[in-house]
Amino acid sequence: MDNDDLRRGKLTTHKVYGESIAVLAGDALIALAFEHIANATVGVTPDRIVRIFSELGKAIGSQGAVAGQVMDLLLTGSSDVGLEQLEYIHLHKTALLAEVSAVMGAILGGGSDEEIEKMRIYARCTGLLFQVLDDILDATKSSEQLGKTAGKDLMTGKTTYPKLLGLEKSREIAEKLNREAKEQLSDFDPEKAAPLVSLADYVLNRQN
Amino acid sequence: MDNDDLRRGKLTTHKVYGESIAVLAGDALIALAFEHIANATVGVTPDRIVRIFSELGKAIGSQGAVAGQVMDLLLTGSSDVGLEQLEYIHLHKTALLAEVSAVMGAILGGGSDEEIEKMRIYARCTGLLFQVLDDILDATKSSEQLGKTAGKDLMTGKTTYPKLLGLEKSREIAEKLNREAKEQLSDFDPEKAAPLVSLADYVLNRQN
Repeated sequence: MDNDDLRRGKLTTHKVYGESIAVLAGDALIALAFEHIANATVGVTPDRIVRIFSELGKAIGSQGAVAGQVMDLLLTGSSDVGLEQLEYIHLHKTALLAEVSAVMGAILGGGSDEEIEKMRIYARCTGLLFQVLDDILDATKSSEQLGKTAGKDLMTGKTTYPKLLGLEKSREIAEKLNREAKEQLSDFDPEKAAPLVSLADYVLNRQN
Repeated sequence: MDNDDLRRGKLTTHKVYGESIAVLAGDALIALAFEHIANATVGVTPDRIVRIFSELGKAIGSQGAVAGQVMDLLLTGSSDVGLEQLEYIHLHKTALLAEVSAVMGAILGGGSDEEIEKMRIYARCTGLLFQVLDDILDATKSSEQLGKTAGKDLMTGKTTYPKLLGLEKSREIAEKLNREAKEQLSDFDPEKAAPLVSLADYVLNRQN
C-alpha cells in the first residue's frame, strides 16, 4: 500500500484480510476471468473464444504482466535501471493489459488478422503512452493538480522517463507514441475509429 | 513448509525465492494452464475446449480449490471442526482437482453429457477416498511404513475422519466411496474402464 492510499484511508485487500486471503483472492479472480469468458460469451464462434483464451493467458503469465512485475521487483532499489528495462516493465505491467483488452475485442468482433494486429499495436502504444505521461505529470504538476502526491517518483528514487531522458525528450516520445497509435487506425472506418483516436489524444493531453 | 519437507531438505518456492516471486509464480501457472489448453489442444472441436475452460475456471476459483483453501485457513486452530466442514475442505481442495481432470478428459474425448457426469462423480468419490485413506494411514501406520511422519495429524490437532468418527466408521466410509466410484463405471466398456476400477481400488488399498 503506498502512502497516497494510506492518506486517503483506502485499505488494500492484504491489509484488511491478511496476505493468505489476498493471494487466494488473486488466484480466484484469474480463474474467474477465464470462467466468465467461457460462460458469458454469446454470439461468437467458439474458435474465436479459444483464441482469446490464448491471448489472455499469455498477457497475464510468465511472458506478460507477471514478467513485468518480476522485473519491477528485481530492479526495485537498483540505481542503474536503463531505458530498456523501464520500457520492459511498462510494456508488460501496463501496456499488455491494454493490448490484450483491445485484441480480445478485435477477435470477438470478427476482425481479420491484420485488423487484430493493428489494434494490438494501437493499444500497446497507448498503454505505454499512459505510463510516459504518468512520469511527466509526476515531475511537472503540483500535488493539488494531480490529486495525488507530486514528485513522488523523485523522492522514492524511482526510475522514470524524465529522469533518464529529460522532460523534452520524454514529451517527444509521448508524441511519437500517440502518432504511432493513431496511424494504426487509418484503414478503419473513421467514424468507428473516432473514439480510439480521442482516447489516444486524451492520454497524451491529460493533466492529471 | 511442513516438517517432513524440512527434514528431507526439500525447500518450497517461497523459501528459496521469497513470497512475492512465489505468489507471482502461482499466478503465472494458473494463466499458463489456460493458455496451454488453448494452444496445444488438437483434434477437438472448439466448443468442447470452451466447455473445459468453464470447468477448469470453476474448479480453481472461488467455488473450487480457493474456497477449500479459504475454509481450511479459517478453521486452522479451531477445535470444533465438524464432518461437514472437513468434507467441504477435502471436496474442494483435493476431490475437485481429480474431478475436473476426469471431466475435462471426458469432454475432450467426446463423452455424452451423461458420461461426463458419471466421470465427475467417479473422480469426486475417488478424490475424497484418497483423503479419507490419508487420515486412516496417518492414524494406523508407522512413519517408516508411510515414508513420512505418522501420527502427525494427531500431534498437530488436525481434524481427521478417524478423530471425528473412529477408525471403523472411517473404513466404512472409504469402502462406500470406493463402491460409489466404481458404480459410475458400470455402463462403460469394461475393458476401457478397467484402469479406472484399478485406480479406485488402489486408492482404497494403498499402504502408504
